[in-house]
Amino acid sequence: MAIPTDPETGEFVRSSDFFDARITADGRDGWPVEPGRYRLVVSRACPWASRGLVVRRLLGLEDAIGVAVADPIQDDRSWRFTLDPDGVDPVLGIGFLAEAYQAADPDYDGGISVPAVVDIPSRTLVTNDYPQITLDFSTEWTAHQRAGAPELYPERLRAEIDEVNRAVHADVNAAVYEAGFAAKQAAYDEAYGRLFARLDALSERLERQRYLVGDTITEADIRLFTTLVRFDPVYHGHFKCNREKLAESPVLWAYARDLFQTPGFGDTVDFDHIKRHYYQVHEGVNPTRIVPRGPDLSAWATPHGREELGGRPFGDGTPPGPPPPEEALGPQW
Amino acid sequence: MAIPTDPETGEFVRSSDFFDARITADGRDGWPVEPGRYRLVVSRACPWASRGLVVRRLLGLEDAIGVAVADPIQDDRSWRFTLDPDGVDPVLGIGFLAEAYQAADPDYDGGISVPAVVDIPSRTLVTNDYPQITLDFSTEWTAHQRAGAPELYPERLRAEIDEVNRAVHADVNAAVYEAGFAAKQAAYDEAYGRLFARLDALSERLERQRYLVGDTITEADIRLFTTLVRFDPVYHGHFKCNREKLAESPVLWAYARDLFQTPGFGDTVDFDHIKRHYYQVHEGVNPTRIVPRGPDLSAWATPHGREELGGRPFGDGTPPGPPPPEEALGPQW
Repeated sequence: MAIPTDPETGEFVRSSDFFDARITADGRDGWPVEPGRYRLVVSRACPWASRGLVVRRLLGLEDAIGVAVADPIQDDRSWRFTLDPDGVDPVLGIGFLAEAYQAADPDYDGGISVPAVVDIPSRTLVTNDYPQITLDFSTEWTAHQRAGAPELYPERLRAEIDEVNRAVHADVNAAVYEAGFAAKQAAYDEAYGRLFARLDALSERLERQRYLVGDTITEADIRLFTTLVRFDPVYHGHFKCNREKLAESPVLWAYARDLFQTPGFGDTVDFDHIKRHYYQVHEGVNPTRIVPRGPDLSAWATPHGREELGGRPFGDGTPPGPPPPEEALGPQW
Repeated sequence: MAIPTDPETGEFVRSSDFFDARITADGRDGWPVEPGRYRLVVSRACPWASRGLVVRRLLGLEDAIGVAVADPIQDDRSWRFTLDPDGVDPVLGIGFLAEAYQAADPDYDGGISVPAVVDIPSRTLVTNDYPQITLDFSTEWTAHQRAGAPELYPERLRAEIDEVNRAVHADVNAAVYEAGFAAKQAAYDEAYGRLFARLDALSERLERQRYLVGDTITEADIRLFTTLVRFDPVYHGHFKCNREKLAESPVLWAYARDLFQTPGFGDTVDFDHIKRHYYQVHEGVNPTRIVPRGPDLSAWATPHGREELGGRPFGDGTPPGPPPPEEALGPQW
């Protein structure tokens, strides 16, 4: 994979191409909420896509919105369904996610990204607008959520959640990539400094409260979690985000383990997909494509002690049951 | 720097070219011990060369054997004296260590390695036989060692020291390179497994005894130390030796800090040279040549508690004084 960077500054330039139609209860963009109609395409390697996996599990949308898991290793046609029999997603009947992009716009020649929500009957991409996809799962799909589904984006907390999300996006979710894909030392240094300053602030915030906003799990926690869970296996070494490991940062490490051990979080995490994707796809960072055997991941299961801070993980709701058998992952260490 | 690997197995192949004349008290190889006659050429980045720096300090050989410090960044002519005025070592009058190799053998076209001991009058390489250089400092230069110099290779412990050294060489000193320079996954996996199995065994050995052999510092500790001190800044990330950090391995981390805080060890360590060398020279591993800002190194100064195990660091000897002013290093964090 070629990594696009600014030739002057060496800064990583994230593709901004996206399809931003929304699937809504009222169908105002032409895409009404309808169980069984759409397919969520993800890579379990990808932090942006994994948000969708977590939210879908927490809200119990597994039956309403099926999921297609791409191979963690892209080829020159990008995400592909080589994990499925004959290399074809059994529901969409396509081998490459790019086919759904082409169906949506035959002239499109931008990047092919996950998460993507695809209209099954027409095999057409509806949206790859990752920040909106999870919010719409929370707010537009309410009629199809499970009994006991938590409120992940409650109205009264939206302003605060949005504010936290902006900071976490700029200084954590995106900053790890900006550090790892920097082509010049100054660009790396800047991203590294911003990342750890923000992690310090988040650690302070989380020292005495169990979750980022309010006393329940919200969208803000999900967005931070999908970066934190990749930190020690990938970002610490591969992206040179190495002031310390997450495991050496007591508050954030306990916070991340608390979420990991909460139904709907850890059961979506495939460390093998995560490690192979980053280390084998980014040949500009890791030319040998060798995948490190470390770190020891078993500590994700150790007690975190965060219950002492109180909080009600699911608010007035309940935890989700186990994942559907066809989505259950094997042992992770 | 091109990294030589076996095309079949992907294993790193270390150059075996070496000049193995010995400088001895009796001068039997034509190179008699003589204070002021020889110059030790090192890179402070290099673990093999850094053994010589530690031993020279512990034995108080600074006046007898001067030192030339090469730039941590080699160019296509290898180690060079670009840190010195006009890029020339002020004593040897050469810009590249290769010139001393050529003086020793005009037909030599093998690798140029440090440590190297050079005869000053003839500007000729005498030896780059790193395992022997430090042993000869201990055993052949006794007449010029300081009062209170420790016995680093005492006769009664040599068999045990040699045995520990063999295991540490194969499974630690060399294994980190074999992991980091492996061109194939299987070669990396093998080196990683061997490395951490040996570190586990060493950790067990050091749990109840302060030093590797006997109750004093010996050559065995020096050889393990120069790899351990590079572990978290370089080998953990750059060489993918990431089962855990040294800082997460309680016994070895305390052992390494104990040595680091002992006069003659930490005062030879230049973390800037170490980090820049590995990350900027090995473009086959790190194409962007970006140097990570982490890890936080200040923990090297924290209490290690190993005094409780007893031991007499210098045996019947004494610690060395501070380094000569011209060799003193600035703050390391």
